[in-house]
Amino acid sequence: MQHLLLTNIKQLCGVEIGDNRKTRLAGADMKQLPSIENAWLYIEHGKIESFGSMDDFHPKQATDIMDLSGRIVLPSWVDSHTHLVFAGSREGEFVDRINGLSYEEIAKRGGGILNSAAKMKAADEHELYEAACQRLHNVMHQGTGAIEIKSGYGLDLDGELKMLKVIRKLKENAHIPIKASFLAAHAYPIDYKQNHEGYLNLIINTMLPKIADEGLADYMDVFCEEGFFSVAETERLLEAGWKYGLKPKIHANQLHYSGGVQVGVKHNAISVDHLECVGDAEIAALKAGNTIPTLLPAAAFFLGIQYQPARKIIDAGLPVCLATDYNPGSCPSGNVELLLTLACTQLKMTPEEAVNAVTINGAAALELTDEMGTIAAGKRANLIITKPVPSLAYIPYDFGNNNIEKMLVNGSVL
Amino acid sequence: MQHLLLTNIKQLCGVEIGDNRKTRLAGADMKQLPSIENAWLYIEHGKIESFGSMDDFHPKQATDIMDLSGRIVLPSWVDSHTHLVFAGSREGEFVDRINGLSYEEIAKRGGGILNSAAKMKAADEHELYEAACQRLHNVMHQGTGAIEIKSGYGLDLDGELKMLKVIRKLKENAHIPIKASFLAAHAYPIDYKQNHEGYLNLIINTMLPKIADEGLADYMDVFCEEGFFSVAETERLLEAGWKYGLKPKIHANQLHYSGGVQVGVKHNAISVDHLECVGDAEIAALKAGNTIPTLLPAAAFFLGIQYQPARKIIDAGLPVCLATDYNPGSCPSGNVELLLTLACTQLKMTPEEAVNAVTINGAAALELTDEMGTIAAGKRANLIITKPVPSLAYIPYDFGNNNIEKMLVNGSVL
Repeated sequence: MQHLLLTNIKQLCGVEIGDNRKTRLAGADMKQLPSIENAWLYIEHGKIESFGSMDDFHPKQATDIMDLSGRIVLPSWVDSHTHLVFAGSREGEFVDRINGLSYEEIAKRGGGILNSAAKMKAADEHELYEAACQRLHNVMHQGTGAIEIKSGYGLDLDGELKMLKVIRKLKENAHIPIKASFLAAHAYPIDYKQNHEGYLNLIINTMLPKIADEGLADYMDVFCEEGFFSVAETERLLEAGWKYGLKPKIHANQLHYSGGVQVGVKHNAISVDHLECVGDAEIAALKAGNTIPTLLPAAAFFLGIQYQPARKIIDAGLPVCLATDYNPGSCPSGNVELLLTLACTQLKMTPEEAVNAVTINGAAALELTDEMGTIAAGKRANLIITKPVPSLAYIPYDFGNNNIEKMLVNGSVL
Repeated sequence: MQHLLLTNIKQLCGVEIGDNRKTRLAGADMKQLPSIENAWLYIEHGKIESFGSMDDFHPKQATDIMDLSGRIVLPSWVDSHTHLVFAGSREGEFVDRINGLSYEEIAKRGGGILNSAAKMKAADEHELYEAACQRLHNVMHQGTGAIEIKSGYGLDLDGELKMLKVIRKLKENAHIPIKASFLAAHAYPIDYKQNHEGYLNLIINTMLPKIADEGLADYMDVFCEEGFFSVAETERLLEAGWKYGLKPKIHANQLHYSGGVQVGVKHNAISVDHLECVGDAEIAALKAGNTIPTLLPAAAFFLGIQYQPARKIIDAGLPVCLATDYNPGSCPSGNVELLLTLACTQLKMTPEEAVNAVTINGAAALELTDEMGTIAAGKRANLIITKPVPSLAYIPYDFGNNNIEKMLVNGSVL
């Protein structure tokens, strides 16, 4: 499909108009989702070539034409925080939590991340890849057109390499942009529970050089949290990552006011992710830097913990990015439509804010602004075509149902 | 398909074994979901004929055989509280709520139920039926094998009759059991805002005789709530309903400690539904009666209000029923799989409790125990066949995804 023309689009959302191209939206600007009603869009060689209003339409040479009457077209979701590569589900811990154990208690018992690490050790690389492929395929059908995937269930050199190689193979075969984050600092493995120094040395002096040498990671990630990695440990790891050209994207302030936001901003993290615990000090730190606050409400929902204070962050004039946190422990779902419903109903974000958070701001959080996140000439034609819907707000409103009719990846129907 | 044999079922859930047939499960019994691992089930003329363990399997004469290795089979969901017949979505109010208006404030502005009533007045009966058919079809594919549907957007004789006739037509054509509840007492229409007596008279002396005469309703429903119908008004309505043979099933204690639970129990309601506000007095009333407490957590989720205290109710030795509340204002979703996730993650019900709540207890809440709710000889073969899943708990765990592979209605694949 070389030339595809979409006509009679009810609403073309997330368009860039004029020269005033923003790379992210913050504060009150997040409420605006620039759109063209009754629009056309022309795709050439997998990229958006041009678009406009049907009132100003000139026939195009197209090998295929889709009449999208009643349908909304959106830039595909950019899911900037996932742990999509894993070996085996963890519904046993889900039942443990219902029966009263906390996420931290489960972690202390060798459950949680260490449970996934044990399964990872036993996993065959090929089966790991096949399972991840299936999950990626599912979330692409749910509208995701670019994704970040973390390591962090290996927790030793071989395991981390195995995960990062699976992510590399996904990058080679998936036809959508994928970014890899190196997250050996996800939890202290059992052998290093009493020897933090030993594990930090292993990451910094053994894993990082090898991974950088093979070009296996785009970002450096750390789970900065009480009971996991301290602020001081996080600083050492981020500094080491920078030496190898890995920019930070870190887990921060999920369970406590851990100082994670501040240390992320201090070290020029692309984003600080989770942010259930955000007070005035965290807001001030974010205002002083360029780091994107990324909220993961589906994990808060699944764990039954407090939600992120999205309104406080947006109303302070900051950007907000949303991501799924797709992982087997705290969020076994990569469904962004449902994430939008959570953002609207629980975080009180408007539908436009929620869509901006997972498109233009998602692209910013993965440094993919040049090719993703908005409708603009030259960007990838990774687009969501909805079913006939009365309005954009209907999509998060009609929860538990799939309102995506077709997904285009590089201009081709998935 | 006259004789269908299901073999190698990984787990056949909700079976009745022996003579000790319970019609509902309460308290600690809710934790048990009697199951047979590696099972077979034989369907004859749309009904369950027999079932058992593959270890004790004798060949059957079957026109069709399904090998269900890796798959779980469950009694289909019984959704005992919906407003599935409505005219038009209400995503505008959804955005109003995000922007800070409460459910009660929206109702006071003529939004809420009165918004749906205005749309209902304008709606063509045929279009209303077609839209309801589509929704029913969707929820049946999501596993619902019996359903209750309320009137209550008419709020005058013609409107209520129009809705109840649509429900009757659904009953005639849908192939699953449907029960109709008469809910003229859903809200005071604008013309009667200052004349409650007039509207009560209209319901009791005009609507009820007509509806009873035409056999259009199975149950009498009232929205007993501050700002809607008082306890005294509810009592008059329930007494009037009983005179025409309509047993009560009522809305109670959603927004306040309204006395709704107590008045429901006093008048032998089949169920009292919503129950966000349940204290010791409500528990004591329920313990003294036979009324089923029905919880609607998807509505609490969508409105962003407090969840129902399911644990308190179950731990008091009571039964709990779950239902969707599918309606355009406070719960535009009839997805029971997602309801199970909400019950597990937010209400801290175990997967087994949640499944019992929406199968055996759902059937009890619709007086359908003889034909629905469990796997037992002679019951309708309305059955859910899952995709290959590792365990029952995986279904609510893997949220945002559809784990139903096939739905059988009267023994035929939907």
